[in-house]
Order: sequence, then structure tokens, then C-alpha cells
Amino acid sequence: MKSFKEMTKDELTELRNQLQKKYDEAAAKGLSLDMSRGKPAKSQLDLSNGMLDVISSTSDMNSENGSDTRNYGFLDGIPEAKKLMADMMGVSPDNVFVGGNASLNLMYTIVSNAMLFGVLGGTPWTKLDNVKFLCPAPGYDRHFAITELFGIEMINIPMTEDGPDMDKVEEYVNNDESVKGIWCVPKYSNPQGITYSDDVVKRFAALKPAAKDFRIFWDNAYAIHDLYEDDKDELLEIFAECKKNGNEDLVYEFCSTSKVTFAGSGISAVAASDSNMKSIKKYMTIQTIGYDKTNQLLHARYFGDINGMLEHMKGHAAILRPKFEAVLHTFESKLAGLGIATWTQPKGGYFISFESLPGCAKDIVAKCKEAGVTLTSAGATYPYKKDPNDSNIRIAPSFPTEEEMKQAAELFVLCTKLVSIEKLINEA
Amino acid sequence: MKSFKEMTKDELTELRNQLQKKYDEAAAKGLSLDMSRGKPAKSQLDLSNGMLDVISSTSDMNSENGSDTRNYGFLDGIPEAKKLMADMMGVSPDNVFVGGNASLNLMYTIVSNAMLFGVLGGTPWTKLDNVKFLCPAPGYDRHFAITELFGIEMINIPMTEDGPDMDKVEEYVNNDESVKGIWCVPKYSNPQGITYSDDVVKRFAALKPAAKDFRIFWDNAYAIHDLYEDDKDELLEIFAECKKNGNEDLVYEFCSTSKVTFAGSGISAVAASDSNMKSIKKYMTIQTIGYDKTNQLLHARYFGDINGMLEHMKGHAAILRPKFEAVLHTFESKLAGLGIATWTQPKGGYFISFESLPGCAKDIVAKCKEAGVTLTSAGATYPYKKDPNDSNIRIAPSFPTEEEMKQAAELFVLCTKLVSIEKLINEA
Repeated sequence: MKSFKEMTKDELTELRNQLQKKYDEAAAKGLSLDMSRGKPAKSQLDLSNGMLDVISSTSDMNSENGSDTRNYGFLDGIPEAKKLMADMMGVSPDNVFVGGNASLNLMYTIVSNAMLFGVLGGTPWTKLDNVKFLCPAPGYDRHFAITELFGIEMINIPMTEDGPDMDKVEEYVNNDESVKGIWCVPKYSNPQGITYSDDVVKRFAALKPAAKDFRIFWDNAYAIHDLYEDDKDELLEIFAECKKNGNEDLVYEFCSTSKVTFAGSGISAVAASDSNMKSIKKYMTIQTIGYDKTNQLLHARYFGDINGMLEHMKGHAAILRPKFEAVLHTFESKLAGLGIATWTQPKGGYFISFESLPGCAKDIVAKCKEAGVTLTSAGATYPYKKDPNDSNIRIAPSFPTEEEMKQAAELFVLCTKLVSIEKLINEA
Repeated sequence: MKSFKEMTKDELTELRNQLQKKYDEAAAKGLSLDMSRGKPAKSQLDLSNGMLDVISSTSDMNSENGSDTRNYGFLDGIPEAKKLMADMMGVSPDNVFVGGNASLNLMYTIVSNAMLFGVLGGTPWTKLDNVKFLCPAPGYDRHFAITELFGIEMINIPMTEDGPDMDKVEEYVNNDESVKGIWCVPKYSNPQGITYSDDVVKRFAALKPAAKDFRIFWDNAYAIHDLYEDDKDELLEIFAECKKNGNEDLVYEFCSTSKVTFAGSGISAVAASDSNMKSIKKYMTIQTIGYDKTNQLLHARYFGDINGMLEHMKGHAAILRPKFEAVLHTFESKLAGLGIATWTQPKGGYFISFESLPGCAKDIVAKCKEAGVTLTSAGATYPYKKDPNDSNIRIAPSFPTEEEMKQAAELFVLCTKLVSIEKLINEA
């Protein structure tokens, strides 16, 4: 099929009429499919059911340090859980604080504390006239929701194939004292599945922020979430790079087992320099009694060590791979060469990022919805939910079955074509 | 033995020399006992080990509403957990939000949100020149630590046998717009074990705060933590009373299973009016993904309902009762009539509150420490850790064994006598 852009108005109109018929047929089927949520499928959750057998009433509930995990104490986590999470990130357990079931809550807490109390002796951000965060976009809506809630001004940073546009990042960070942070998903980024190149990581680690209290929020959510055993992306460990520049205080790194064990009942962690960790604990000891150590023990015993966890991840890959491939195959066979869309081909993570013609994303999402296929709202991947080009759509292939994903992708392709033709006809 | 105050200086000196000998002997034993922490004993934790058998890899992990508890979703908790926690507080499940393992974290979050975002449209407290909290004292150090962290001015409110001095509470709350909150442990208060009388609860519910954003932080930590099956304190349910005055927005109530199941791995909850609950959820949905529902399911299935939980509490009472009684018996037999101390005789909760002669508490705690018995720091039960009379000591009988408690109480009595005599001699 030739590129839509090369078609005449008549050809486009003819094609639209054919496609509209197909769409009407599809819509009549009463589909109810959901490609919106980065949510593990039931079969993925089942992979971790063995964890529920690890501990019973006769188990020794003591941590390897002898503390009773059922009781109070050990604010920063039990040693075996700290080790496991440290190994997920490739850092030292001494620099790890183990949290509850949501790493997002650790991120929120750290931003919130910066607002209220400042960072390492700096002015509380609530007392400043201007606080800005850089937001590589498209990105993760829940990051942006946190900074929006605090009234922090968000600045879009374009993404490249290697990560955020570092020229722009450096320009802002090294010159503007009101720039206090940047949201990053450095491996298999949400939603593009991009892994930051070594050069990008090195440039992050070498930043010379105008603001002493500037911090990188390094949300390594998909650290071990590879789809292909023999073709993994590798992310450079950022703290080691920071150390070379005497810059260890620059980064908070986050990870969790939400997409390793149970999405709603995992454990999370933050890694930080000695100074930052001291500050985190200083506030945490007032904010809470300490997180659930029974669940930490459960995770540590179930996996044994990071190798057990990595082995476990192969099960997730086996379930996710065909779903990703079903979408990508449909896109490739039905959209390639038409000049109306591009999409990413991630080797891990939870999303595929789709770029339509400018001004089409909202209409495509709406058209899918009408026919029973729910997608993430167009715009959601940008700060303030405003995609300047109205072109980005996040596809989440994890929750539906492979067969459902195929159906949903077919309908999505149909809607993309219809909306694109409409646009081209109107512009012609 | 006659009252120390009636003794001559010579009699006191003679007695001191005898007691000092006993103290030296005791100190030589190398004791290492801890009466400082409101921490359940191992035997209490063991009571809940059955919970670890409730769920295994073959269990149905769906909530009664059909949702998979292992996955994301249900920010405010699964229905069966909401019901259980609602019944602990005697409120409607619709007005309950189930949190993680620490109710303290819910309290912190709500104060923090008031600081940052205001209460129901009010000015954020960080923007006000003056924010004050009333602190019935002696009280819970971790409450005071939260308000201190935020720079909120804390005002001591004397406790009576019926609860806080309500004349003072009304005077402040109804007249001073900068008074934004009050910390309450209304049943078996920490550390006195006082349960607020019906009249006190009614007066709380009828407050007419000068500040629209004034809130009562009703920490019902010991709602079902009775020591005597046939002699329980009864606390009037505050929301029902508030309703009579159209005052439902006045209260946030908190509870948890930290001292029901596992201290470090329980579930917590906050109850609030419809308007307050809407606001809590509005922020929570950005602050976290939702709390651990697997643990909620575990709790709900283990207990079945509130009756199962109440039955379970009898086991705790059986373990705690003799420890409380060991302390109280020692005090009664060794200190009664000496005119140097008073103490509370709680029917539940986790603490006994001890009042020495003014100016003696710090010295008693130090003297105990020297001989190997650790107590909560003197002053810890007051805002800013400053006990104006230096007379209050919190005794926590739960963690040591009954035998250890006896030894510790003996030593404590000895130290109290020695320090009191010293004071009386110096004053004579």
C-alpha cells in the first residue's frame, strides 16, 4: 500500500469509505478491551503465588540479623531485603532504604519533604517563588501528577533515541537555579521503552547544577524487566558515574517489585548517597514506624538472591513477549509505509509508544473508545496532560490476553487510518 | 512505713544508706531490662501466627468484590478490610480508608497535607504565621514529634481522670483561630490509660472552633485493647455525637492492628466524614498507588469479622495482665503511703503513668539506667520533651517477661525512693 500522503483526495475518500465499513462492523461486535493500564495480567501474578507458601505459622520469622520481623524496629528494612533491592539497582545495601508496596510513595515523600523542609539544609521549596522540574516527555503521568500537585512548573524535555535531550537538560540545570529536579525512567522508559545510553548517563552524572538542591529522580522501575534474554538493554549504574564527579548527592534512585511479584503487594526501595540517606531517615523516623518487614522477609526468602529474581523475570518475559509482538506485528503489517505513524519497539518494560500524525491522537483514542477499546487518554504522557502535538499514544499490552491484544491492535490500526485520512482530506 | 515527708532528716539519711546498699547490690547484678517500649512481647506476636497459614499459593486471592488483591486498584482498601476496621471504630465502612502498616503514617500524611494544601479549601498552614496544636499531656511522643517537625506550636493541656481539661480545650479552640488541631488518644490513653468520659466526648463533638480548619486527631490506638473482660472502659463513638451537632468534619479517627496482629505488619485505617474522606482520597491517589491489599485480605480472612478479632484480643489480655499487675502490685506494696509517688491503674492499653515528686523524674530514670533498667526518657511524654514538673515517667510493661517486670519494678521503686529522699533531704 502506498503512503497516504501520496494519495489523491479521491483515493483517500474511497479508502475511508471502505475502512468506515470495517469499523462499523467491528464496533457492532461490542468489544470491551483495555490497552490503557500498565497492569500485570493474572497469569503474571500467578508466577509469584509460590511466595505465599514461603512463610507459615511454624516459620522462623527472624531476619538474618536476629530481629523479629513481626515486631517494630528496623526503619530502613531488614538486611536481606536491603541486599535484594540493592542488587536490583547495582548499589550498596548501606545506601538503600526499603519502603512499602509503592515506590511512587517514596518519590512523593521525598518531593514533599523538599517542599516542606528543603534539601540538605536548603530553603524549603514552598518558600521559593519559582520551582521547576524538567520532564522528559512523553513520560510517566504519575510523576507529572506529583509535581503538578505541588504547583511545581514542569518543562518538557524532548526524548531522543538515547534518552532525554541532554543539551537542553544541561542548559536548564547548569544555568537556572529554580530548576530543582528531573523525572527519569532510565531503562525501558515509560512509555517509549528507551534505555538511556552510556553517554546520557555520564552527562547526567556530570551535571553542575546551578541549584545545590537539584536532584535527579531516577525511577528505575524496569531495571530487570527485559523481554529478550539474549537482547537486553544495559543501563550504566549512575551512582558509580556520579562518584567520579564527586556528585553522589545528585541522585535518588527508585525501584520496586510491583512488576516482579504482586503489583499491589510488592516492596519498594530508594537508593541515595550517605548524606541524602541520612536525611531520608531523619524524616522517615517521624513519618512512620517503619515499613512492613514480614513482606520484606517473604520477598527475600522467596528469591534467595538477585539470581532467583532474575530467573523469575524470565516467566514474566515469556508472558509479555507475545503480547508486545502481537501489537508490533499488527502495526508493522498494517501501518508500515503509510506515512501516518511511527512506534517504538521496546526490548523491555511495559509500554509501546505510538506517534500518529500531529493532531490525531485524541481522535484516535476517542474512535477506539466508541468501538469498545480503551486506551490511555491522549495527552496523559505529557505534563499537564497536554501533548503539544496531540500525537502520542501509550499502548499497554500487559493486561489483556494475546488474542485480545491482537483484536485491540487491529481496531487501533483501523481507527488510526480513519482519523489520519480525515485529517489529510481536510488539509488537502 | 510512714510518709517520707514526715521523716526527720536523720531518719531519711539512715534510710538512704540502707537503700543505697540495696541499690549497689542490685546494680552489681548486671541487669539488662527494658520498660521503655510499647512493644508487644514475642508471645503476643505468636498469637497471630495462624494468620500466616490463611493464604497459600492455592488460595482464591480475590476480594469479596471480585477484585484481585494481588494487583493494582482499590485505593481505599478492599471491602472486607474496610468493614473490619470500621467495626473496630464503630463507624460506617463508607467512611473508612485502609492504609499500610502504620496509622502514624496516615496521621503524618493528613497533617502534612494540611500544611501543604490546606484543609477543605482553607489556606495551607505553611502560609500562616501561626499554627498551634493542643497537646493533652502527658501524651504520645510520636504525635508531638510530628507537630514539632512542622514547626507547629504545641500547647500543653492538663489531663484529668476524665480526659483533657475541656474548659481549657474549649477556651482555646472556640476563641483562637490559630489553633488548628488537638492530639487525642481517647481510650486507654498513652501513657495514663485514661478513657475519655462521655461528657468529654460530647464536649469535643460540640466544639465551635474559631478556625474552620480545626481538626481533632482521634487516635483510637487501643480501641479494643482491654485487660479485663468483665471490667472494660467504654468510649462513646464520637462521629455519632458530632452528627448531632452537624460537626462531622471535625474529626479524623485512626486505628490499626499493630497491637492486634503483628506490630510491624498490621493494617491501619482512618475514618472521616464524607467531605474529609473525599479530600483524603484526592491526595492519596497522587501520593501512592494504593496500600497492600494482600495483607488486608489476610487480616479479613483470619478474623472473619470483628467478633473474631475481639476473641483474639483476649489472648493479648491474658499475656499483658500479669505484667501490668506485677508492676502495680510492686508499686502498691512498696510505695503506697510514702507520699512520694502516684501512678495510674489502667484497664487496658500499653502503659502505666507514674508521677514522682516534682523534679525527680529525670534522676529516677538515670538511676535505673545505671543499674541496667531502661525506661522511656523522662520528659518524652510532653511536647518538646519538656515535662514542666519533671515528674512523669511512662512505664511500658509489655515487652519483658512477667519475672523481668517484677525485677525491673523492684529496682524502679528503689531508685524512686533514693531520688525522693535525696530531694527531701536537700529541701529540709
